[in-house]
Amino acid sequence: MKHINVGVIGASGYTGIELIKILINHPNFQISYVATTTGGIELDALHPALKGVFSCPVEIADVKEISKRCALVFLALPHQASMGFAKDLIKDGVKIVDLSADYRLDLEAYEKHYCPHEDKEHLDMAVYGLPELYREEIKKSSLVANPGCYPTASILALAPFTKYIDENFPIFIDAKSGVSGAGKKCNELTHYISINENIFAYKVLNHRHEPEIKEKLFKQSSKDFDVNFVPHLIPATRGELIDAYMLINKDIDPLAVLKDFYKDEPFVRIFDNPVDIKSCAGTNFCDIYAQRKGNKLYVNSAVDNILRGSSSQAVANANLMCGLDESTALPTIAYVP
Amino acid sequence: MKHINVGVIGASGYTGIELIKILINHPNFQISYVATTTGGIELDALHPALKGVFSCPVEIADVKEISKRCALVFLALPHQASMGFAKDLIKDGVKIVDLSADYRLDLEAYEKHYCPHEDKEHLDMAVYGLPELYREEIKKSSLVANPGCYPTASILALAPFTKYIDENFPIFIDAKSGVSGAGKKCNELTHYISINENIFAYKVLNHRHEPEIKEKLFKQSSKDFDVNFVPHLIPATRGELIDAYMLINKDIDPLAVLKDFYKDEPFVRIFDNPVDIKSCAGTNFCDIYAQRKGNKLYVNSAVDNILRGSSSQAVANANLMCGLDESTALPTIAYVP
Amino acid sequence: MKHINVGVIGASGYTGIELIKILINHPNFQISYVATTTGGIELDALHPALKGVFSCPVEIADVKEISKRCALVFLALPHQASMGFAKDLIKDGVKIVDLSADYRLDLEAYEKHYCPHEDKEHLDMAVYGLPELYREEIKKSSLVANPGCYPTASILALAPFTKYIDENFPIFIDAKSGVSGAGKKCNELTHYISINENIFAYKVLNHRHEPEIKEKLFKQSSKDFDVNFVPHLIPATRGELIDAYMLINKDIDPLAVLKDFYKDEPFVRIFDNPVDIKSCAGTNFCDIYAQRKGNKLYVNSAVDNILRGSSSQAVANANLMCGLDESTALPTIAYVP
Amino acid sequence: MKHINVGVIGASGYTGIELIKILINHPNFQISYVATTTGGIELDALHPALKGVFSCPVEIADVKEISKRCALVFLALPHQASMGFAKDLIKDGVKIVDLSADYRLDLEAYEKHYCPHEDKEHLDMAVYGLPELYREEIKKSSLVANPGCYPTASILALAPFTKYIDENFPIFIDAKSGVSGAGKKCNELTHYISINENIFAYKVLNHRHEPEIKEKLFKQSSKDFDVNFVPHLIPATRGELIDAYMLINKDIDPLAVLKDFYKDEPFVRIFDNPVDIKSCAGTNFCDIYAQRKGNKLYVNSAVDNILRGSSSQAVANANLMCGLDESTALPTIAYVP
Repeated sequence: MKHINVGVIGASGYTGIELIKILINHPNFQISYVATTTGGIELDALHPALKGVFSCPVEIADVKEISKRCALVFLALPHQASMGFAKDLIKDGVKIVDLSADYRLDLEAYEKHYCPHEDKEHLDMAVYGLPELYREEIKKSSLVANPGCYPTASILALAPFTKYIDENFPIFIDAKSGVSGAGKKCNELTHYISINENIFAYKVLNHRHEPEIKEKLFKQSSKDFDVNFVPHLIPATRGELIDAYMLINKDIDPLAVLKDFYKDEPFVRIFDNPVDIKSCAGTNFCDIYAQRKGNKLYVNSAVDNILRGSSSQAVANANLMCGLDESTALPTIAYVP
Repeated sequence: MKHINVGVIGASGYTGIELIKILINHPNFQISYVATTTGGIELDALHPALKGVFSCPVEIADVKEISKRCALVFLALPHQASMGFAKDLIKDGVKIVDLSADYRLDLEAYEKHYCPHEDKEHLDMAVYGLPELYREEIKKSSLVANPGCYPTASILALAPFTKYIDENFPIFIDAKSGVSGAGKKCNELTHYISINENIFAYKVLNHRHEPEIKEKLFKQSSKDFDVNFVPHLIPATRGELIDAYMLINKDIDPLAVLKDFYKDEPFVRIFDNPVDIKSCAGTNFCDIYAQRKGNKLYVNSAVDNILRGSSSQAVANANLMCGLDESTALPTIAYVP
Repeated sequence: MKHINVGVIGASGYTGIELIKILINHPNFQISYVATTTGGIELDALHPALKGVFSCPVEIADVKEISKRCALVFLALPHQASMGFAKDLIKDGVKIVDLSADYRLDLEAYEKHYCPHEDKEHLDMAVYGLPELYREEIKKSSLVANPGCYPTASILALAPFTKYIDENFPIFIDAKSGVSGAGKKCNELTHYISINENIFAYKVLNHRHEPEIKEKLFKQSSKDFDVNFVPHLIPATRGELIDAYMLINKDIDPLAVLKDFYKDEPFVRIFDNPVDIKSCAGTNFCDIYAQRKGNKLYVNSAVDNILRGSSSQAVANANLMCGLDESTALPTIAYVP
Repeated sequence: MKHINVGVIGASGYTGIELIKILINHPNFQISYVATTTGGIELDALHPALKGVFSCPVEIADVKEISKRCALVFLALPHQASMGFAKDLIKDGVKIVDLSADYRLDLEAYEKHYCPHEDKEHLDMAVYGLPELYREEIKKSSLVANPGCYPTASILALAPFTKYIDENFPIFIDAKSGVSGAGKKCNELTHYISINENIFAYKVLNHRHEPEIKEKLFKQSSKDFDVNFVPHLIPATRGELIDAYMLINKDIDPLAVLKDFYKDEPFVRIFDNPVDIKSCAGTNFCDIYAQRKGNKLYVNSAVDNILRGSSSQAVANANLMCGLDESTALPTIAYVP
């Protein structure tokens, strides 16, 4: 059996622990390097739930060490920090799955919504890591930009319909995310008292995932949709629900469209009823439902924001980049009940 | 001080207990009759939280007794059951606040979405109990149809904008409700395991509050909007959030429009940021925020679904019907933290 | 009607907002001064839920201003900070309800479990503010040490039984608190992800409320009980449950003992079944249940940790100190459903 | 590789779905029969989260079919129903892991706390399925009584200390369980509104797991402890926390005792701090902590109530009964974050 040494940079956050949880049982990937910006701790001290399961020293992230010890590396870092590592690792021939936003957007869009890009040289070689749309490119790539959580669920929901959507009218996306989407950092927003028994919108029509959705829909359809995105925080740990509203100009059966579009896809499930976040929590599935009323189309999708919306999709990409079966070690058993 | 005997029919449900919680401290209304369909229990045995606060026998609901002992009655009953009582009580001269849907809609709409109407005789005399829009009519009425929870939050959010909304484009309303909105009955939907750590849409584009919103917006604006309503259940006890998406045909400042429209209203609060359900939980407030992006308008409102969306609004209506100050005994102190 | 000017120092925390929520509707106390250590904000900006209800400038806490503008002041401050204000305010003749631990314990116990005492001069004049046990002393006092939340629920549960408890055997108290008990500060413990879907013990046999319970039981009974206290954090906003286990040396009917002991008390409710935290959330009630099995006694009590366990008990004490009816403005309507 | 046909009877409940989630990925056990009392549905319609993962017809449970198609069967049924099947299956030579209480207790205790026993003939041959205590017996057994959830966590916590515990004093066990422990049936107790933001004790000193704990501790230690058990329901989906209080008569280091007792056990983890339910949720681990204060001992353990407290322990037993490695397919990766 093929053995490939992989590293996880940014092991302290939620996407870091999710990566490790998957990699522990991966038959081909061997965790050869685990790092954070501070290091100096055992992995099972950083994540006590791993006690008795897996541990190793957590080191201070260092480009030379990564290059020496890893054939492929997952960068589970904030944007900007990520390209700092990536630009050198690419030169050293290390395959990269970047979980940050650094290689997701065209230069102009990136610099408008994030910060000046520090690795323009390699931006063009990055492939957007949504296997259902870019599988063949991912297989050949050595730099994959892992999609954002909201874009994953939104694009998978909308892609089957782009040819039917009336582009003279806006698309409205009302999204709901569990608190893990707000990160591990403690702040007023993530305080239990703030979000328990509560729900609220944030970054209304101003979230950085809006241009990502718009750009990728354009690449897929050559249609310049007017995407309007409103995310909400909900009192749940993980999971993300998308409700998209739009006009269409053809009398389609939306469930039939979905079932046909994804008929060979193992990680997209089409449901005949509205989806929920719990049935896909803990898995790499994206669950989708749709309903039409005259010329109005409603599309409804759900993912686990830190798995399909991040870490398990990252492993899917890594599998493809390394010539493995895409589904190797990907979680499919949901956190139910 | 004026004393008015009032009754609560349907004291076992959530709206029943909320009515009683408000009426206990009402300076003018005296609880003279409390009933359910089964009776035979003390009120503080039915609702143990009332122990040491207030109790009385819960009787079997009986029209003759209500007429004899109440000047005004709150019908906190399921639809259809409600009109069974109302039709006789009206004849006996008892003032009625009906919390069910029985007198909310025009005959045709009612019979399409609910059941055959059994009190057509009095349907026309009912006033829709949204004080901000129908205050003067409510004052003169003896039969008030208390609005549904979703319509309350939706209509208050949209009414200020009806003259600017482009009626050639649909209005999409994405609503989120706490579990108390699903009622006290135990079923698969309200099981803790079903909804905790979860969120899902239900009755997509098919909820009975959709025609109620549409009809009332038409009455307010003479515009026949294409209202599309998708409700969700969220893991919270009480509270309801509305996110409405639409096109407008005028360059308005939506916050200024809201502040002007509600400038004299004590129970509508306009916020400069997205609203949340916790800041108005436990109160009669409807909180509203709005934001424009080109010709797209986003309106965002929140209410406590069993207070402003039901029982406290019912008391506001009763206050008006009895010549009292509308705000008498209405709760304003939120369940925070 | 008597009007008394009162101040709230420490208005930003949970006990601060709870004090203000009660005082807003108090017929005799007038909020004349609201302060924090930083000031410079309107109260309804600090607590948006108060918008449209009550507001005033939040000032920087200053002893001279307090003395000038308040006849009574609530110190909702951390321990140590509190006595810094109290020592001067006492001299100025301002009545004080101190919500911190600074005046709760004997000098030795205080300095062992907290820090060196900086106002030894006034420590002896402080009365422990548990009305059921010290009502007459509170009435005459101008410095009341408001009890801790766990001690309130524990002492009220145990006081009726002290004469029957076998002091040769330890008392074990297993306590559970909602997250508001951990304070408003954002940290790893109060992060939503840490406590949602979780429960854990903390400060096992080492919580500073243990010596407070022990000392007060000794004062009430002259018995030096071996109190062992283990608190837990639970995924709930507010509320506190106490389960106490002990041996007794007499064949008592524990419910009869409780009912007799508290027969004239308006804010202690004896239940015939185990108590829950929701039925008293939002109120000043302490709910108690007890059960005996041979010589084993189980006592079970519940309070709202930030009301009966802090702010509403503080107002009860202030009422008594000012010659008002103890129950004036105290909340009795629970946060149900 | 060895292939063994196994059946799951009672596939609709929580323990049923948990069994199936584990068996899907079991390398040796092949799901050859899935049944409920009503049948007539596909498994992924019964449990939509399994869509795209695994399905098969759910049949009406029938002894003859089980015997024909299964070498081993898991009975995930209510007590009494279970022995109805077991008594015949034993005769047919089918190996049985019974998740109900039917074969856990001695006859007298069973009939006192449950109902008349209908399979006295085989009661004696049943082995109590707690691998850490009865591994060798389980290996040889064809009828294993899978322990209750509370007894699993309690006995594993107490067994290392039985020789030190002072049996002249009672043991008090204060237990907390997630709502899945109350079953899938919808009732007032499991309604979201009842338990969210709440906690309460139930079946105080009267739960049927109390005699199970007592009996098994006696078998392990020959000491007849006075076990007093008080369970609570908490607002969490899964997980169970045990806090046990007792007196000891020797100066032990409780963590050292635990570490020594379980030094070779892969599914018991000893923590140096209080345990939580989230770090073992989703796994077969039992996590334990202990602390001593003079002659008082506090022991604190956590399990996933439907895995280690039921279904994953059942698979561990099945593994042992079939000569497989005990840990085969047992879940170790926790539901964190």
